[in-house]
Amino acid sequence: MRGILVGRFQPFHSGHLEVVRRVRAARPSDGLVLGVGSAQESYTAENPFTAGERFEMIDRALVAAKIDGCAIVPIPDIQRHAEWVAYVVALLPPFDRVYTNNPLTRLLFERAHFAVESPPLVDRARFEGARIRAELAAAGDWRSAVPPAVASYLESIDAPDRLRLLLGAGDRLAPPS
Amino acid sequence: MRGILVGRFQPFHSGHLEVVRRVRAARPSDGLVLGVGSAQESYTAENPFTAGERFEMIDRALVAAKIDGCAIVPIPDIQRHAEWVAYVVALLPPFDRVYTNNPLTRLLFERAHFAVESPPLVDRARFEGARIRAELAAAGDWRSAVPPAVASYLESIDAPDRLRLLLGAGDRLAPPS
Amino acid sequence: MRGILVGRFQPFHSGHLEVVRRVRAARPSDGLVLGVGSAQESYTAENPFTAGERFEMIDRALVAAKIDGCAIVPIPDIQRHAEWVAYVVALLPPFDRVYTNNPLTRLLFERAHFAVESPPLVDRARFEGARIRAELAAAGDWRSAVPPAVASYLESIDAPDRLRLLLGAGDRLAPPS
Amino acid sequence: MRGILVGRFQPFHSGHLEVVRRVRAARPSDGLVLGVGSAQESYTAENPFTAGERFEMIDRALVAAKIDGCAIVPIPDIQRHAEWVAYVVALLPPFDRVYTNNPLTRLLFERAHFAVESPPLVDRARFEGARIRAELAAAGDWRSAVPPAVASYLESIDAPDRLRLLLGAGDRLAPPS
Amino acid sequence: MRGILVGRFQPFHSGHLEVVRRVRAARPSDGLVLGVGSAQESYTAENPFTAGERFEMIDRALVAAKIDGCAIVPIPDIQRHAEWVAYVVALLPPFDRVYTNNPLTRLLFERAHFAVESPPLVDRARFEGARIRAELAAAGDWRSAVPPAVASYLESIDAPDRLRLLLGAGDRLAPPS
Amino acid sequence: MRGILVGRFQPFHSGHLEVVRRVRAARPSDGLVLGVGSAQESYTAENPFTAGERFEMIDRALVAAKIDGCAIVPIPDIQRHAEWVAYVVALLPPFDRVYTNNPLTRLLFERAHFAVESPPLVDRARFEGARIRAELAAAGDWRSAVPPAVASYLESIDAPDRLRLLLGAGDRLAPPS
Repeated sequence: MRGILVGRFQPFHSGHLEVVRRVRAARPSDGLVLGVGSAQESYTAENPFTAGERFEMIDRALVAAKIDGCAIVPIPDIQRHAEWVAYVVALLPPFDRVYTNNPLTRLLFERAHFAVESPPLVDRARFEGARIRAELAAAGDWRSAVPPAVASYLESIDAPDRLRLLLGAGDRLAPPS
Repeated sequence: MRGILVGRFQPFHSGHLEVVRRVRAARPSDGLVLGVGSAQESYTAENPFTAGERFEMIDRALVAAKIDGCAIVPIPDIQRHAEWVAYVVALLPPFDRVYTNNPLTRLLFERAHFAVESPPLVDRARFEGARIRAELAAAGDWRSAVPPAVASYLESIDAPDRLRLLLGAGDRLAPPS
Repeated sequence: MRGILVGRFQPFHSGHLEVVRRVRAARPSDGLVLGVGSAQESYTAENPFTAGERFEMIDRALVAAKIDGCAIVPIPDIQRHAEWVAYVVALLPPFDRVYTNNPLTRLLFERAHFAVESPPLVDRARFEGARIRAELAAAGDWRSAVPPAVASYLESIDAPDRLRLLLGAGDRLAPPS
Repeated sequence: MRGILVGRFQPFHSGHLEVVRRVRAARPSDGLVLGVGSAQESYTAENPFTAGERFEMIDRALVAAKIDGCAIVPIPDIQRHAEWVAYVVALLPPFDRVYTNNPLTRLLFERAHFAVESPPLVDRARFEGARIRAELAAAGDWRSAVPPAVASYLESIDAPDRLRLLLGAGDRLAPPS
Repeated sequence: MRGILVGRFQPFHSGHLEVVRRVRAARPSDGLVLGVGSAQESYTAENPFTAGERFEMIDRALVAAKIDGCAIVPIPDIQRHAEWVAYVVALLPPFDRVYTNNPLTRLLFERAHFAVESPPLVDRARFEGARIRAELAAAGDWRSAVPPAVASYLESIDAPDRLRLLLGAGDRLAPPS
Repeated sequence: MRGILVGRFQPFHSGHLEVVRRVRAARPSDGLVLGVGSAQESYTAENPFTAGERFEMIDRALVAAKIDGCAIVPIPDIQRHAEWVAYVVALLPPFDRVYTNNPLTRLLFERAHFAVESPPLVDRARFEGARIRAELAAAGDWRSAVPPAVASYLESIDAPDRLRLLLGAGDRLAPPS
C-alpha cells in the first residue's frame, strides 16, 4: 500500500529529504506520495515557487539521493477543511497511511480512520522553510539547508533574486495594487 | 413577514439566545431566520465548527428554550460585498427586516431599503465568541457562557480538544503546510 | 436522529409533499431535513426559482398540510461528486438516513455507510418537475400538480410569466449573450 | 447619464455597429457602455475570441465609424442570475438605461427598476454571430457581415483558421480530453 | 500600440492623474489602458469603492483634465500569480508596454518579454491611497489629494461616511460575523 | 528534458499505453509527464473515475509494461482556455515538448512556442474511451481494450456497476436533482 506526506516544500530542504529517506527505509515495500500543498500558489513571500518548480526540486533531490518508490502530486488548496480528506482521497492514488506533524492534518485523517504517524522533525532550527526563504532573500547561507541538487536548481531559476523581491516589497506585492 | 439575524455562531452562546428570545417576543407573528454565516468554514481558529454543527447547537438551544418560529439557514460567504444583499435575498425565504449590530451589514441593507434594527448586545463581556473559543481551548469556564444544551453538545463533539488544537497550533494549521 | 431528502423542488409539487408526509409518518420521532439542491441556480429553464422562493413554497405547503418536524436547508452545488457526501455532512445538521430515488446519490451515500431508502415515487406521470414547468410556461393545468399553498405562491410571483419567458427564449437566455 | 448594451460580440458585426450608431444618435448626451459578456471565455466554438480581442474589434470599428462617447468593459460571467444585476451595477460605471433584446436581461433589469429598451435588430438574417462564425470556419462570405475594420483585424489574428479548427473539431476540443 | 497602467485606485488621486498625464505626454500616439485591479472588491477598509465607482472617478478626472486616449478596464483578481500575465493579456486589448512601480508586476511582465517602465511616483507622502482613505475616515484633508472632479464625486456618494464606518469598525465588518 | 501527454484517461486503455510506449522509445533520455485532465471530475458518465483511480490505473499499467521514466500528475480544469498553457506550465515540472492529437491543445501550445507532436492514434476503433465506457456499462467486451493490470483494477472497484448506473440513469444523475 501507500503512504502520503503532504507539505508545501517552499523549498524542498534537507529536513524534508531526511524524513522521506526514513519513511522509505521503514516501509520499503510501500509506495510514498509526496503531496505538494498549496499548489496553486506562487510568487508570494510564503509560496515563492510554482508547483512545477517544487516538483522539479523534489524530483532532482530524490534522484541524487537514489530514493525510489515516490510519486509527486500537486494538491491545490480547497478552502473547506471539513471536506479536505475526501478531496485528497479523490485526487491521490489509494493510500492508507499519513505522515504528518501538523495537528490539524492528524485530526482530520484520524477522524476518517487513517493510520497517522508523526515522523520526527530533523534539526528544525536549520531546516525550516521560512528561515530558508529569509536566507535566500538576504543572500545568506541557504545552500547548507537544501540538498545540493536543489541548491543548483534554485540558482538556475534565480531564486535569491525572486525571494529578495518578494520578501522586500512588503504589502506592495500583489499585482493589481 | 420575516426578519433575519445573521451571525457566525462560533459557537451559539447565551447572548445570541437572549437576542433571539427578545426579537421573537417583540414580533411574535413574524418568523425569524437565523442565517449561519461563513457556512463553508470549519476547523479553523476563527471558525472551529461546521455549519451543520452550528445548526445543531442552535436547534437544540431553541428547543430547550421553547422558542419557536425560527428557521436556521447556512449562508456560505461570497467575497463580493456589493452583491451580498442580492445574494442573501436569493438564498433565504422572503424577509423585510434585518437585525444586526454590524455597521457594514446595516449600511448594505439600508441601501437596499430594508428595515434594520440593532438589538442591544447582552453582557458582551461574557458572551463573545472569541472569548468563549479561548476558554474552550484553555479548558476554562466556557460552560457558563452557552446554553446548557449547547454545552452538552460541545462536549459530545470534543469541542475543547478541537479548540485547544486549533488555537494552540499557530500558523502550522492549514492542512497543506 | 434525522433523515435527509434532497431535491431541486422546481417547484415543490404534490408528489414531493406526499413523500414527505409518508417519511414523517413512518418515523415520527426522527427529524427530516429537506435539502434544496442547486441552490445557487435561478431564472433558468431548468431552475426557474431561487432557493429562497423554493424555501417559501415548501414552508407554506408544510404549514398548510400540518406536517412538522422538518427543516429546509439550501444546498449550493459543488461540482465534485467524490466530495459531495463530505460536503453535505458538513453543511447539514447530523443525519443518519438518506431518502432518495437518485441512483448516484444512493451509491455515494452507501459508500459512506449511510442507510439509504427509496420512497416510492407518487404518480410520476402527473408529479414531475419538468412537466409542471412546461405547463406553467404554456399556461396549462399546473395547479392540479402542486399543493394549493404552492399554487397561490406561484401566482403571487408571476411564475407562469417567468416560465413562459424562460422556456420560450431558447438559447438567447443567458444574460450576457 | 449612461446606457449599457451587453453582448458577447463573437465577433462584433455590422448589426451591432448599427445598433450602437442608433442608440448614440437617439441620446447623444448620454454615454454608452458596451459590456463584453462571457469575458472569461475564448477559444471555444461559441466564444472563439478573448475579451481583449473583442475589445479591439469594437474599438477599431467605433473609431472607423467616428462614433464616440462609448466605453468598452469586459464582464466575466457569474453563474447566479438572481445576483446578475447587482454584479453588473458594481462592475460598470453608473447607468440608468439598458438596451437589450434578451428577454431575461429585460426581466432582471426591470425587476430592479431600470429603464429597458429593445433596439430593433438589424437584418438579423445576415448579422447573427453563429452564422458569421460558421462562415469564418467555412472560409465563406463573413467579410460582408462585419465592419471593414473588424474584417482586417480578424484576418490579422488568423480568425478563419481558428474558427475552422474550433467548429470542425467537435467534442475533442476541450484541452484536457 | 498601447501601454497599460494597473492600480487599485482606491481612490483615484492626484498622483495617479499626474502619472497618467506624463505617460500620455511621453507617447501621445500610444493608447493607454487604466486597469482597475481587485475589481471584485468593495466595501472593505482596503477597497472601499466598487469597480464601477472607481471607473467613474477616473473618467471624470480625465475629462476634467482634458486627457484623452485612455480606456478604463476593470480587472478582477485571480489568485494565481504565475498565470496573471496570461490573464491580463486575454482580458485587455493588445498592449506592449507596462507602466508599474510594483516590483512583482515588473518581474512577471519582464519574464513574458514586455517592456516595463517605472514612472516616478509623484509626491508619495501626499498622494498615497492608504493615507487618503484614513483622511476620508477622519474627515481630514483628503480633498487636496484628489482631483476636484473626484472630490465632488466622493462627496456625492458619501465616501467619508463609508470610510469612517469601514475603518472604524475593526474586525466586525465582514457581513456574516 | 521532458515531454507531456495530457488526456482524461477514462479509463487508461491499451491505445494510451501504446502511445506512451512509443513516445518513451523514441526519446528514452527524456522524461514524460502524463497529465490527468479534468482531474476534479468523477462519478459522471463522461468522467466516471476519480483522478486518484486514474493515477492508479496508469501506474499499474506502466509497472506491468515495464515502462519507466514517467510521472503522473492530475490537472484540474480551469475554464479559461487563453490561460491554459500558463496554468499547465506552472503546475507541471519543466517540459519543452507536447504530445497531443487535440487540435486546440496543439494551437494553444504552438502559440506559446512549444514543440508539438501528434503521435499516431492506435486502432482508434477499438481503443476509444467512450466506447469502452459503454462496454463497461453494458457488461460487454471492455477487457480486451485495456491492459490486463487495468482490467483487474477496474474489477476491484466494481467499475462495470458504476458505469451501468452512470450511463443508464440519464439526466437524473446529478446528486441534487
